[in-house]
Amino acid sequence: MRIALDAMGTDQAPGPEVAGAIEALREFEADVEVVLVGDEPTIRAELAKHADVPERLLVHHAPDRVTADDAPASVIRRKPDSSVVVGLKLQKNGEADAFVSAGSTGAVMATSLFTLRPLPGVDRPAVGTLLPSVGEPFLLLDSGANVDCKPHHLIQFAHLGSTYMQNTLGRANPRVALLNIGEEPGKGNELVAETYGLLAGEPGINFVGNIEGRDIIGGEYDVVVCDGFVGNVLLKFYESVAGLIVRRLHKELDRSQASEGLEFVFRVLDYAETGGAPLLGVGGVSIICHGESTPAAIKSALAVAAQAVRSDMVKQSAKDVQGIELS
Amino acid sequence: MRIALDAMGTDQAPGPEVAGAIEALREFEADVEVVLVGDEPTIRAELAKHADVPERLLVHHAPDRVTADDAPASVIRRKPDSSVVVGLKLQKNGEADAFVSAGSTGAVMATSLFTLRPLPGVDRPAVGTLLPSVGEPFLLLDSGANVDCKPHHLIQFAHLGSTYMQNTLGRANPRVALLNIGEEPGKGNELVAETYGLLAGEPGINFVGNIEGRDIIGGEYDVVVCDGFVGNVLLKFYESVAGLIVRRLHKELDRSQASEGLEFVFRVLDYAETGGAPLLGVGGVSIICHGESTPAAIKSALAVAAQAVRSDMVKQSAKDVQGIELS
Repeated sequence: MRIALDAMGTDQAPGPEVAGAIEALREFEADVEVVLVGDEPTIRAELAKHADVPERLLVHHAPDRVTADDAPASVIRRKPDSSVVVGLKLQKNGEADAFVSAGSTGAVMATSLFTLRPLPGVDRPAVGTLLPSVGEPFLLLDSGANVDCKPHHLIQFAHLGSTYMQNTLGRANPRVALLNIGEEPGKGNELVAETYGLLAGEPGINFVGNIEGRDIIGGEYDVVVCDGFVGNVLLKFYESVAGLIVRRLHKELDRSQASEGLEFVFRVLDYAETGGAPLLGVGGVSIICHGESTPAAIKSALAVAAQAVRSDMVKQSAKDVQGIELS
Repeated sequence: MRIALDAMGTDQAPGPEVAGAIEALREFEADVEVVLVGDEPTIRAELAKHADVPERLLVHHAPDRVTADDAPASVIRRKPDSSVVVGLKLQKNGEADAFVSAGSTGAVMATSLFTLRPLPGVDRPAVGTLLPSVGEPFLLLDSGANVDCKPHHLIQFAHLGSTYMQNTLGRANPRVALLNIGEEPGKGNELVAETYGLLAGEPGINFVGNIEGRDIIGGEYDVVVCDGFVGNVLLKFYESVAGLIVRRLHKELDRSQASEGLEFVFRVLDYAETGGAPLLGVGGVSIICHGESTPAAIKSALAVAAQAVRSDMVKQSAKDVQGIELS
């Protein structure tokens, strides 16, 4: 398989991308290739800093770059030679099986939608973020793609999340929870109060009911469904609190000597180390990373991409959402 | 001044209420009285466990008690002899200046609305929760009273929050931020995108713009406005993450010997120790506490109530919201 990696995405690009790709290829199975997409001279200069660059690391030239000033929806028209557009087109044209980018999240989402198209039956593809809990990690979706949702969008998120957790991450019969401000069925705003009844009757969804903010890290479910506004606020809040505390703890404590209890705190908070949130519900694999991704986070995102390809995520999602198997 | 305290609110009532009230009266100025409202024999038995009970601690009998099974809106009709209804009526009838309760939040909110009535010009009273940041604490509102909001409700929250921070907490020219998923004016869902323009032009509001989830603990503002669904999810999430981490840290570390960096972590996370969120926009003082409040949290809520009374919070809010001064 071949993964196209936007080499111009992170704030320090292409350093973390190149280092992360090299680390990944040294660890991953031998059938994985990574294509660094971006300004070739810049990438070659970065590659020259590394010894023993794996042969399966390729370069595909894309002279332009998306910046924070570009309106996401206009990138595909205005920046056709950007690493984001070129990288996604490699996948569209069958020259790559997946795309990974730490560039502008809005631009990657919008260009993925234009290029890979939503799956039949999916109105609103959603970003799924895997978050740590006191138990197993869970998938929060939508974590930012759709700010105004209708109940049937949340139902689709439930399907997309279930399929991802089951087929890609191997979680049997994923428990789906609805994020709310109370546990009882009638609770919440109009959106979630109506969604509750629909989810409870939805075939193929193992709905376990409402959960409150306080239950989020409780580890009692596999998928947490919410609209992208709530999900995004929550995710960014969590990242900032976690980042703040971990930075302080790291400064004060030697993690290698941390007791089990503190190691747990590090583990719960340190998820920023892992990277790669899949855009679920499009006709391809598009993995979104933080702009501040480290090489380890890039490697983690490449692993998410490889897992998605290997598990036939797109085919499974298409099947689940509409009962239609893509040929 | 006299503060009515629901003695039957916490999960371990009336223990934390009685202990918290005694602590408060020992510290507060001599003009403060606290009336414990609840089952008199139960309260007397609890009082008997304490030596040197201050004289300014009174008891007002209310035989009934609100439970989690009571529908909030029905409490005023179905449980007229409950500590929540009796306590709020003491205020309505001029026998108390404020009410504090750790009972069912929904019941306290609904009964406060019925009893104290919204101020003229306020459609939706809101719960304001004071949260720690890396700088000064800030007020998050609405943190749970209103799950479906219109832009003009958020504008009212901005006024109520500003007045509270300025008049009651002494924060000059409070900076008001709108919780969103991006910083630019057009960002967000329909509600906040429309609210942005209104807030920017609202007289009497020092609007500093959108903030994202990651900025929440940044300490760059005094009031953060959001709808009660988002606010409640966020608040409960924060409480649970903070609680989890602090419990682990306390277990592992001796706080008294913590370095400055770790002391900061404790301070940011340990806000659950402080209690008392005012219901803003009603014609009286109603302070809501956690069901798991400790005596220290009850004492803190009583201090919030006393501050609100001393600062003439209700009169100031009424003036600010409608330009009408209550006589």
